[in-house]
Amino acid sequence: MKTLIVVNFKTYAESTGTNAVQLATIAEKVATDAGAIIIVVPQIVDVFQITRRVSIPVYAQHVDGISFGGNTGHILAEALAEAGAQGTLINHSERRLGLAEIDAANQAAQRANLTTIICTNNIATTKAAASLCPDFVAIEPPELIGSGIPVSKANPDVVTGAVNAAAGVKVLCGAGISKGKDVKVAVELGTDGVLLASGVTKADNPEAALRGLVEFI
Amino acid sequence: MKTLIVVNFKTYAESTGTNAVQLATIAEKVATDAGAIIIVVPQIVDVFQITRRVSIPVYAQHVDGISFGGNTGHILAEALAEAGAQGTLINHSERRLGLAEIDAANQAAQRANLTTIICTNNIATTKAAASLCPDFVAIEPPELIGSGIPVSKANPDVVTGAVNAAAGVKVLCGAGISKGKDVKVAVELGTDGVLLASGVTKADNPEAALRGLVEFI
Amino acid sequence: MKTLIVVNFKTYAESTGTNAVQLATIAEKVATDAGAIIIVVPQIVDVFQITRRVSIPVYAQHVDGISFGGNTGHILAEALAEAGAQGTLINHSERRLGLAEIDAANQAAQRANLTTIICTNNIATTKAAASLCPDFVAIEPPELIGSGIPVSKANPDVVTGAVNAAAGVKVLCGAGISKGKDVKVAVELGTDGVLLASGVTKADNPEAALRGLVEFI
Amino acid sequence: MKTLIVVNFKTYAESTGTNAVQLATIAEKVATDAGAIIIVVPQIVDVFQITRRVSIPVYAQHVDGISFGGNTGHILAEALAEAGAQGTLINHSERRLGLAEIDAANQAAQRANLTTIICTNNIATTKAAASLCPDFVAIEPPELIGSGIPVSKANPDVVTGAVNAAAGVKVLCGAGISKGKDVKVAVELGTDGVLLASGVTKADNPEAALRGLVEFI
Repeated sequence: MKTLIVVNFKTYAESTGTNAVQLATIAEKVATDAGAIIIVVPQIVDVFQITRRVSIPVYAQHVDGISFGGNTGHILAEALAEAGAQGTLINHSERRLGLAEIDAANQAAQRANLTTIICTNNIATTKAAASLCPDFVAIEPPELIGSGIPVSKANPDVVTGAVNAAAGVKVLCGAGISKGKDVKVAVELGTDGVLLASGVTKADNPEAALRGLVEFI
Repeated sequence: MKTLIVVNFKTYAESTGTNAVQLATIAEKVATDAGAIIIVVPQIVDVFQITRRVSIPVYAQHVDGISFGGNTGHILAEALAEAGAQGTLINHSERRLGLAEIDAANQAAQRANLTTIICTNNIATTKAAASLCPDFVAIEPPELIGSGIPVSKANPDVVTGAVNAAAGVKVLCGAGISKGKDVKVAVELGTDGVLLASGVTKADNPEAALRGLVEFI
Repeated sequence: MKTLIVVNFKTYAESTGTNAVQLATIAEKVATDAGAIIIVVPQIVDVFQITRRVSIPVYAQHVDGISFGGNTGHILAEALAEAGAQGTLINHSERRLGLAEIDAANQAAQRANLTTIICTNNIATTKAAASLCPDFVAIEPPELIGSGIPVSKANPDVVTGAVNAAAGVKVLCGAGISKGKDVKVAVELGTDGVLLASGVTKADNPEAALRGLVEFI
Repeated sequence: MKTLIVVNFKTYAESTGTNAVQLATIAEKVATDAGAIIIVVPQIVDVFQITRRVSIPVYAQHVDGISFGGNTGHILAEALAEAGAQGTLINHSERRLGLAEIDAANQAAQRANLTTIICTNNIATTKAAASLCPDFVAIEPPELIGSGIPVSKANPDVVTGAVNAAAGVKVLCGAGISKGKDVKVAVELGTDGVLLASGVTKADNPEAALRGLVEFI
């Protein structure tokens, strides 16, 4: 399959509200020019307006393992889907869930036809997450997040270990990714792409950063 | 001040996505006709599209005590405000927070000029919540939620006790509210209005339910 | 291996403090008489006094994935081991943990030479838990807990499914277990024993209940 | 009232198991010699053995807002009391709870005749915690924890602000406390004592550290 570049907007000022719309528009332009797949992951409150403005895939940052009902303040998969989201992160390192919650969230999202990416922190939890049958697992070793050192370079063994442990479930890797060669190495290690955030959202020139990322795809 | 009718859309099918837009439109119509204040509280992913369609106040169901930064999957007050929300619930019974989290969420929301409603479960926690200086506290005795018996009738003492404990912070009450007379009694007990959900969202005729609620205002 | 009868004392009055010591003493007597393995799982504050009084294995109800350090109010594996605990439950349905937390708790416990039992709620989470390499997984379908209907009878497929999904990790089953024949069926379905609570702790005659449970072992 | 020195053992190696017993014995000796009140707060699993060995007050690090029942892995006030604990911390910065949980924990503890200390992080949450009527609130500004700079010196205003906000509920202060003069200043600012941990548990000579702390009492 084609390599995925998944850009998590987090809650940075540079990727909130109208800035988020602008960044998604840039991502769409780069994706179209390069024939690449770039997925944007804005804050949940921004999902609706971004799906109205771009045609690249928009994922949510979180979903809860709930159904229609009394769940004030929770994120419902069907509501995300109706707002135009095509997928969602689950269990991001900044929004960890219980094991039964991850399973329920993954099932809720798949029931609403959302593509699921379960985030993990090591090989053991990657194996566990993969056994829940998400569409993707995304391994991000916590010690490398924000280190500026790409996981694909700092610890290639954890990436290949995750690919093996995932037993057929597709794997993304994250932490420290910012350049096209990081993506290239990640793919050579057996992944289907990368998950990154500040490498794009905090870049002086996000468009140039995105063009760099898809350079070797 | 004028009595507030706060309608929590929760994650009911009847108040998600296009249904949420439709219900908000009905609420706007009743509010305009009656000269009443009706606030709608849709799911976070629906906030943007509803603020584009109605001019009555739209509140969020939850906000986190965070600032711009790395907070994947969390709800940022500034993002809610930019999407058009005018206020937010905090610590709803279906989305409880820690004490320090409530304080941080209340501060984050007020920093973004959102009106805050901290939900509580008894007189002691109402006093504690009020001491954090929100715009409103909303007391909902858990044993009456979904009971069909209005708190204003079943336990008027808890309502007046909450009003006293709040020491000047405005109080809403909830649990079992569905009729205009429930609102009337709530106001007579010293509150500034009511917080309700299924009494409107699950009504056979939500417009009639809303018209009933504002009958004695 | 021999069949395990794991008795969770929860926080029942009948199994707290001196009552817990008394119940553990009864369990020891039945285990000795029948040549059976009965493991008692008292509250953490009761672990020390029970390990002083009985020689059957004593497990903790919970452990956190922490090391020596600043973790006020958390449960340290090394402290449990020094108090005489030989094992621990992890992720019980009444004390759910995050995926990364389960992994960390399992590793912390094994580092302190505690036998680990990760509790799960369905086949998918059993597979995930087993991939973290605990000593046991214990599946308890939530819909059967407290139903009085043994999981081994109500839903044998979930038990055999869990045994298959566990891929070599030993499996216990729980929910509704109270009689020797429930244990017998559980073993025939491929498990290594059962996890139960009220069937013993709330029995009119706990000693008779325990004798019944080990009847066919 | 007499000044309280509350020593939190956390989960340090120096204050776990037999080391905890030894440290509690030292604390008892210093308290007796100086006529001071020193309260030790060991890990929950160590409470029983320490209450058998010393006669100074032993508090727990955490309690849950539960009653007898099905609460696996939770901490029951009645079980703590039966094991000899005389009080408990609630909502320590390393074990934060929800507002309703704090209220429930405080009530559960007081029902079992345990003295309660609710920990807080700023003046607003101190006011909120005090409104729940614990025996003490203990303010520990997070930015000073582990800083080596005593809160009583770095930020006397937050201490006096907390004393005022507590409106009659007794106040302890913590963060950076290690010397007798820190205790003296804390008392001069209106508190009834201090809460500390590493200043004693990590001291080269814990006995000397304790003797220093009670020097000016």
